[in-house]
Amino acid sequence: MTKDTKITSSDCITEAPSGEIRFFKSSKPFPLELGGALSSLTIAFHTYGALNRDRNNAVWVCHALTANSEVADWWPHTMEKGAFLDPEKYFIICANIIGSHYGSSGPLTPDPVTGKALYADFPRLTIADMARAHSVLADALGLDHIHKLVGSSVGGFQALEWAAQQPERFEELILIATDAKASPWTIAIDETQRMAIKADPTYGEPRADAAQNGLAAARAIGMLTYRGPEGYNRTQIDPPCEIAGTPRRACSYQQHQGRKLVNRYNAYSYVTILDAFDTHDIGRGRGGVEHALQALTMPAIVIGISSDIIFTPAEMRKLAKTLPNAKYYEIDSAMGHDGFLVEYQQLNAILTQHD
Amino acid sequence: MTKDTKITSSDCITEAPSGEIRFFKSSKPFPLELGGALSSLTIAFHTYGALNRDRNNAVWVCHALTANSEVADWWPHTMEKGAFLDPEKYFIICANIIGSHYGSSGPLTPDPVTGKALYADFPRLTIADMARAHSVLADALGLDHIHKLVGSSVGGFQALEWAAQQPERFEELILIATDAKASPWTIAIDETQRMAIKADPTYGEPRADAAQNGLAAARAIGMLTYRGPEGYNRTQIDPPCEIAGTPRRACSYQQHQGRKLVNRYNAYSYVTILDAFDTHDIGRGRGGVEHALQALTMPAIVIGISSDIIFTPAEMRKLAKTLPNAKYYEIDSAMGHDGFLVEYQQLNAILTQHD
Repeated sequence: MTKDTKITSSDCITEAPSGEIRFFKSSKPFPLELGGALSSLTIAFHTYGALNRDRNNAVWVCHALTANSEVADWWPHTMEKGAFLDPEKYFIICANIIGSHYGSSGPLTPDPVTGKALYADFPRLTIADMARAHSVLADALGLDHIHKLVGSSVGGFQALEWAAQQPERFEELILIATDAKASPWTIAIDETQRMAIKADPTYGEPRADAAQNGLAAARAIGMLTYRGPEGYNRTQIDPPCEIAGTPRRACSYQQHQGRKLVNRYNAYSYVTILDAFDTHDIGRGRGGVEHALQALTMPAIVIGISSDIIFTPAEMRKLAKTLPNAKYYEIDSAMGHDGFLVEYQQLNAILTQHD
Repeated sequence: MTKDTKITSSDCITEAPSGEIRFFKSSKPFPLELGGALSSLTIAFHTYGALNRDRNNAVWVCHALTANSEVADWWPHTMEKGAFLDPEKYFIICANIIGSHYGSSGPLTPDPVTGKALYADFPRLTIADMARAHSVLADALGLDHIHKLVGSSVGGFQALEWAAQQPERFEELILIATDAKASPWTIAIDETQRMAIKADPTYGEPRADAAQNGLAAARAIGMLTYRGPEGYNRTQIDPPCEIAGTPRRACSYQQHQGRKLVNRYNAYSYVTILDAFDTHDIGRGRGGVEHALQALTMPAIVIGISSDIIFTPAEMRKLAKTLPNAKYYEIDSAMGHDGFLVEYQQLNAILTQHD
């Protein structure tokens, strides 16, 4: 347990070198916005670099849908010397969201009393629950003050919600390809993925590998929205072919992406996070989105992606305009929403100029 | 049988008043591009208005994915006095595509010998097969000369392919929200829909109502691409709500659209047409798309839709530019690809000025 933790005797934090997975564990129930509670709370997280003497160099990264706490792995070239997540300058933290597959309390976690995982009976979460779990870990790490709070995609949902919950905690927000509220369009995408998962009748069976065909189809739906027209039309071009019915790259790409997720994830975590996604609305209980955003007076950097069809540039500009102290930048990319993962050079160029 | 038919004794055409369904039936096998044949051929079609004495007022409409031959029903306000499909001026024909659910030979059609439908064993079709079926019917109706050939979406695939097969037959092409070749993006959309259908393990069972949950999910995927971000964000707005987890309009819309298709269609026709979609390439066997388009020297009108994420305005402009004698128009719409169905006023305004 670190010297800096302010946690109760029932809690513990595992130690590990920079860049290795760590765990926060609390045996206390963690109450949920939609009712009920997690009977105990485990949060998997990674840290990189070290907290400085003034304790003012913490950068918290919130991850997207199916990612994990190992930022250096899923966000290549953003965490290295000279990049915007420079572990020589910053103490960088990323926590796996609750409900996820990568170590934090989720549908596959055995219940400490019964020893059984809840699978489809895992309770419904909200983005606000995820943000509160982050704040529990931040408290445990003694991070009263966080220099930068970074979130892309659903990570940005958590960042905005957490900032709305504890605005005094954060010095600066970095919001990439995200929104203050789940739009009807994004909710429709999620519902469609749920329909695909539940078209697989093994969904509901109490096993980690239930609904694999449905999950693969859901991931393929996700990929369509992550890449968009330009993304596919640039990367999945077939060689000229004179025979109709020849297998197409775009088909094997969709199948491959589906299988890849099935091999590393589970349908129950996926549905849990989609459901939470749909609840995102930082205006809820705060007099509406506009009012909630106007209370976030810290400096903010908002970054949209020119070809993003999930969080369109028009919506990103609106978000930046509504925040009282935000600068807007747009990444020029043909890779759609995935631009936030791919266009690290543009991200680093934008974000290091604000260091 | 009409006086004008040039069909063999084994063929027949049923008569019906303008706007009522008719059938062409041939007991001869209809060979297919990918091998094999339909053991016999039935084509359901509608006609509206009358062929004039000079036989130069025929307008052939090719329908999209899950539509039928009843144009006046699925394309409202385009077929009426003063509209671009004016039955007082034109003899309008629309044939249900082979493989479909609405009367033409398809997966649910009982085989004339065995009396059994083929379901999942129905042979794979190409867009070229569909176009050849149209030409068989046009021959049977004695329509050597077609004044205008109209196609939107997959209807445009058929129109371009048919024009490439028999360029001398058509005086003018009208191509709305379509392409000369299925793009990697559109093939990825189709593959994702097939994944959703096949996640339902009842796909393959020899019954008309197989894979209903999969088909509903596939339709929901389709809807995402037909409407796009603006379409959903304008039409599926929820009232302000202070309780997380409240049902969302976008979810019930997706569920509703899925059920609606399941109630009127079947998974085998749907997959048959998706598979055919992917084969679309008017350049196949014609020296490439550009070469094939340059052979289409008749006047063409190409219409894109500003918010279409399936056939993007950039691609529509490219199509118009490659055709040697095309004019390009763009419909200003927030309704995405569905703009071709919804924005009849703009369509009529563009297309009646060319009468």
